Amino acid sequence: MFTIRIIGLDPGLRRTGWGVVETDGNWLKHIAHGTVTSRGDDDLALRLRDLHEGLTAVLAAYAPHEAAVEHTFVNKDPVATLKLGQARAIALLVPAQAGLPVAEYAPNQVKKSVVGAGHAEKDQVLHMVKLLLPQCGDPAPDEADALAVAITHAHLSQSRAMQIKALAT
Amino acid sequence: MFTIRIIGLDPGLRRTGWGVVETDGNWLKHIAHGTVTSRGDDDLALRLRDLHEGLTAVLAAYAPHEAAVEHTFVNKDPVATLKLGQARAIALLVPAQAGLPVAEYAPNQVKKSVVGAGHAEKDQVLHMVKLLLPQCGDPAPDEADALAVAITHAHLSQSRAMQIKALAT
Repeated sequence: MFTIRIIGLDPGLRRTGWGVVETDGNWLKHIAHGTVTSRGDDDLALRLRDLHEGLTAVLAAYAPHEAAVEHTFVNKDPVATLKLGQARAIALLVPAQAGLPVAEYAPNQVKKSVVGAGHAEKDQVLHMVKLLLPQCGDPAPDEADALAVAITHAHLSQSRAMQIKALAT
Repeated sequence: MFTIRIIGLDPGLRRTGWGVVETDGNWLKHIAHGTVTSRGDDDLALRLRDLHEGLTAVLAAYAPHEAAVEHTFVNKDPVATLKLGQARAIALLVPAQAGLPVAEYAPNQVKKSVVGAGHAEKDQVLHMVKLLLPQCGDPAPDEADALAVAITHAHLSQSRAMQIKALAT
């Protein structure tokens, strides 16, 4: 099987976490993770530009084949929803500009895929990310979430590939 | 006085209106207007990429010095708010990437500046835009709104310039 390199993104205007993993369908390997930040006292336009620049540099450095973005939770605070929407736009835009397919996963899909339960606690996600990617060290919460999204995409694309194989035989 | 070329933007995921005007503080001149669109049946990432490409081309073609963006109205529908936030992110990002200062104006600021009343009807805005920019022809609603934002910025930067001049004398 081919090796696929996946970038997972957990968008936020102040901190956007990213994590890169590789999979060939049998194994999962940690490549790198980090955070792209913007300054809270800058104008919104400059903050979005900084996130765009940072993520563009990450994609250039790690050259993933596919991207997976955590789907924004629509909460009841319209101002927070708007901010998250703006950060998420950058997280979707940058891989699309690089020609990558971009998948989106809801937080409960990520939890279900990584922990096995849609309503898992944050700590459980971190615990499972460390178990699945023993080389990942001690990622920050946004980074662990980004790695969890990448792992989810690896699991689900593997299932899709197996379904296609089963249909073909 | 210097001539300033201003681009106004009325962000929307399906249709983002743009309008370019010039001012030297005494006169106001229509340069161009149009709409950048994205396909409703495309993935969100591709739609954002298309808006980004379209607006980047407009900025390259008309080389404005400053940008003004209509500040999203935060309504009660979180899904609509999120979509608008994503389109607005692109409208703020593209001029910031081109090195332009980017101002934001709330819809009632725009109405107050163009019509003289913060709660004016859409039709009144269109009427005043045509009166202020007789060369503009018959712009679509998003385009008229974009021109109105550019006019607002021209008015308000002129007031700022006059204040600075008054302080300096």
